[in-house]
Amino acid sequence: MAFTLGIDFGTNSARALIVDVRDGSELGSCAVDYPSGHQGVLLDRRDHNVARQRPADYLLALEDAVRGAIGQAKRTRGFGASRIVGVGVDTTGSSPLPVDKKNTPLAFSKKFAKHPAAQCWLWKDHTAWREAERITELAARHRPQFIAKCGNTYSSEWWWSKIWHCLRVAPEVFDAAHSWVELCDWIPSVLAGVTDPMAIRRGVCAAGHKALYSDEWGGLPDQEFLAMLDRGLADLRTRLYDVAHDASVPAGALCEEWAKKLGLSAGLPIAMGAMDVHYGAIGCGVREGVLVKVIGTSTCDCGVLSTEKSLADIPGICGVVKGSILPKFHGLEAGQSAVGDIFKWWVEGVCQGDAALHDQLTKEAAKQQPGQSGLLALDWNNGNRTILVDQRLSGLLVGQTLQTTPAEIYRALIEATAFGARTIIERLREYGVPVSRIVCAGGIALKNPLLMQIYADVTGCVLQVAGSSQACALGAAITAAVLAGEHKSFPAAQKKMTSLKEVCYRPVAANRKVYDRLYVLYRQAHDAFGGLDKSADLSGLMKGLLEIKDAQSSAFPARKSSLP
Amino acid sequence: MAFTLGIDFGTNSARALIVDVRDGSELGSCAVDYPSGHQGVLLDRRDHNVARQRPADYLLALEDAVRGAIGQAKRTRGFGASRIVGVGVDTTGSSPLPVDKKNTPLAFSKKFAKHPAAQCWLWKDHTAWREAERITELAARHRPQFIAKCGNTYSSEWWWSKIWHCLRVAPEVFDAAHSWVELCDWIPSVLAGVTDPMAIRRGVCAAGHKALYSDEWGGLPDQEFLAMLDRGLADLRTRLYDVAHDASVPAGALCEEWAKKLGLSAGLPIAMGAMDVHYGAIGCGVREGVLVKVIGTSTCDCGVLSTEKSLADIPGICGVVKGSILPKFHGLEAGQSAVGDIFKWWVEGVCQGDAALHDQLTKEAAKQQPGQSGLLALDWNNGNRTILVDQRLSGLLVGQTLQTTPAEIYRALIEATAFGARTIIERLREYGVPVSRIVCAGGIALKNPLLMQIYADVTGCVLQVAGSSQACALGAAITAAVLAGEHKSFPAAQKKMTSLKEVCYRPVAANRKVYDRLYVLYRQAHDAFGGLDKSADLSGLMKGLLEIKDAQSSAFPARKSSLP
Repeated sequence: MAFTLGIDFGTNSARALIVDVRDGSELGSCAVDYPSGHQGVLLDRRDHNVARQRPADYLLALEDAVRGAIGQAKRTRGFGASRIVGVGVDTTGSSPLPVDKKNTPLAFSKKFAKHPAAQCWLWKDHTAWREAERITELAARHRPQFIAKCGNTYSSEWWWSKIWHCLRVAPEVFDAAHSWVELCDWIPSVLAGVTDPMAIRRGVCAAGHKALYSDEWGGLPDQEFLAMLDRGLADLRTRLYDVAHDASVPAGALCEEWAKKLGLSAGLPIAMGAMDVHYGAIGCGVREGVLVKVIGTSTCDCGVLSTEKSLADIPGICGVVKGSILPKFHGLEAGQSAVGDIFKWWVEGVCQGDAALHDQLTKEAAKQQPGQSGLLALDWNNGNRTILVDQRLSGLLVGQTLQTTPAEIYRALIEATAFGARTIIERLREYGVPVSRIVCAGGIALKNPLLMQIYADVTGCVLQVAGSSQACALGAAITAAVLAGEHKSFPAAQKKMTSLKEVCYRPVAANRKVYDRLYVLYRQAHDAFGGLDKSADLSGLMKGLLEIKDAQSSAFPARKSSLP
Repeated sequence: MAFTLGIDFGTNSARALIVDVRDGSELGSCAVDYPSGHQGVLLDRRDHNVARQRPADYLLALEDAVRGAIGQAKRTRGFGASRIVGVGVDTTGSSPLPVDKKNTPLAFSKKFAKHPAAQCWLWKDHTAWREAERITELAARHRPQFIAKCGNTYSSEWWWSKIWHCLRVAPEVFDAAHSWVELCDWIPSVLAGVTDPMAIRRGVCAAGHKALYSDEWGGLPDQEFLAMLDRGLADLRTRLYDVAHDASVPAGALCEEWAKKLGLSAGLPIAMGAMDVHYGAIGCGVREGVLVKVIGTSTCDCGVLSTEKSLADIPGICGVVKGSILPKFHGLEAGQSAVGDIFKWWVEGVCQGDAALHDQLTKEAAKQQPGQSGLLALDWNNGNRTILVDQRLSGLLVGQTLQTTPAEIYRALIEATAFGARTIIERLREYGVPVSRIVCAGGIALKNPLLMQIYADVTGCVLQVAGSSQACALGAAITAAVLAGEHKSFPAAQKKMTSLKEVCYRPVAANRKVYDRLYVLYRQAHDAFGGLDKSADLSGLMKGLLEIKDAQSSAFPARKSSLP
């Protein structure tokens, strides 16, 4: 009997999961909220772009979550902490933090304890949008290959934008930092007792997607390019790393100190750190032809394609990185900047309701037929990550009459995210990435059958739901199991350790037909406002919506007569 | 001492007003709700386009309102019903009703009492949109001059569309109808005791705007044209009228029966009936250079231009009719299909609130600076009457983020209607109709200073408020006063009998500047979705909104720091 431990650092809490390597069954699970800020996030009232986290919170949550999970697992006969054979860690990203020469976060020092720039820069911090624009411009001119792999646009959420922004607004922090580390690399380095940033084994997942790392140009961006941004960044490059690794290499072995703290055996292999959704993809059974969608406040899409197949750069796809998910596969990442957040905004921010209203609107929306409301929305309230890669976009709703109801708008917003999802799938297929099946994880996938059916109807794909509700932590545990030699390969480990829920959403032909018509209109608006079509004819869009509405209303008169 | 009586038939109630012809002071006023249907309107759960009214409701309300107003006026020393020297009537329109050979509504018969097609077809009934499209098509091909005066588009709200629709869906009603009468002609004909539809004196106001009547082509549309619609309509023409009159001619004299019912003297002159806003324009002091806006659930705009000046057909302006408002002037009518209705929809239909929420949102919206929300809306939830003349359009909202509040959307909707108002003014000016001052009437003009200031800032015009809150009934009373010989002319009567409130809204330069920028974006969306620009570049629209938002947020940081 052998078990592995997966630890998932989310936006608001950390979760530890103990699984049986034979079948992936989950023996213990414990989530611990970060104690600081608003739900763990340090905000700034004067700037809604700010989102930071206290590094100390991670270590507190790490210890409590692991001890909690072990405590729970102990109720299972045959389990003992000594039978845990490996540890895997995933975190949000790109979430870089500045460290000193000893790999200690600057935020641990008295001097910088309260300095916002010395904390971890959470993935959703958008303060660096100006730097991101400048990096995109400079790369387009001087190193187009750098951004070709991230959809030709560098994001304010990523490594270099954030570090450069720190240099500009808080040079005292930048100067004091010996190095910077992605959270997903830093946690394993702490567990391994690494006290020199240069000795940290960095994962290719974060490096490749966020730090413009690639073997093709010898690792990180060259100093000449970085100097165009700022001399300081070129200097920093020498204090970062030369090589980044995929999951076939361990990040290190558990050090005595943390073995004691967690109640584990020292020397355990620690898997290479990765960003949450990438390990989540493994936990959902990702393989060629399967797209994994982690649907939550935002959505991340992950797919893989054998490195034996050639793969062109895909415009608008956030990341194409060799080995970022599975060794020997290109890892592909796409996403939607807001999904659950849009529904939350509508229900709580606009309709001023709570969970009960979520349920009520879902119930009402479920009675509606596709297209019957005459509404169409763009899902850009938080910008568009894929395929436009543009945060300077916003939401749109069209088709309102004087009779439009909150539930109709709620449904239109769900449909908008479904159309966004379809746009991603179509882009992947256009460039030769097969998508034959979709496996979903995340809270919404589990709790919102209406959304899942709409996604099936809009995309025309069968949607399955990952067996584990902790897919990210499970993926980390699977990686640890492979690394510990419990399985020969990732596919073998995934076959044994992942599962699917029984429920399965199949497209309904009649709905697909309507959604195919609506998708044409969605793309008209998408391409016009997103800048893909600069001479758009939108004169038929409202009429098109009304035609579909009229047709659906005659086809389903029942709903009409139930109006007050 | 002399008084006149103005009677205004609105959408939900009728109001009688007794005024002193010397100074327009109001001695008595009484409004009576129509008893049938939903707030007086007969609806159909299966078709939201249906809006009818029971003709009997009008007569009940007429009697009670006039008696109520007289009762109130009697409290004033010197007043006596015998001193009422004339009566004027205005109603909604185009609201045609079918009558028999004796000018009795078919709805008064047992057979048709409950038949929806035998009732009065209220102005906002949209069941005839297909017929309107067909009339527009046929006129464009065969009689372009017919629709050149109504913005090149014939509306489903108008006379021929409705009667043709009746013929198609309820031929039994059409066949039973000896004639059809506009409500504004029918009420005076009842008061005058007219028992033959051919003897009704019809007003040019409704005829010209809604029934395609013009001296230029010899009255109503020719039979040949009507036969292209349907043989039945060509036949009907012979049972309608040959001449329509302006307000210099009386509709008749008060008959014994109704004199008794109302407690008035038989033989009183009855002014020519007109549609409510046209008399409202008179009550607001319309003259060349003054645009009258009646702002309520929808908005009607009225202007006049001397018939001595040549006036080209104005594309997109609903009606240009000689004498429709003042004799010897072209009467111009424009409008927005929904204004107050949009705010009501937002507050009540979407936010599920009541009057208190209206107040709260208004208060919050008043704290916002122009452009600070980053939102932009199109005011088309009920289609666009001017300048697109297209009911098959719908609402649009763009610029939403995850922080957008209900009050921000509320303000954006107000601004949208202001932009719509500006579009109308610009179109009038383009065609040589001067607009130097705006006088507003209607509930919203009186009660919503936020909206009025936004309109001033958006249009760049000074906005004044009509002195009377019953401008339509007052206009009817003024017309009656002129007809009774109490004043020599309309201008003379208006000078004495109309007034303005003290409050006056002047454009604020800084706000104008921001709204000028926003209006450019509004027109981009307006022209693209409205079909005026079929190769639109909307790629900069969302970014433009964000730029204005950023600029206004830095200029007015107070609001930002008050965020939670």
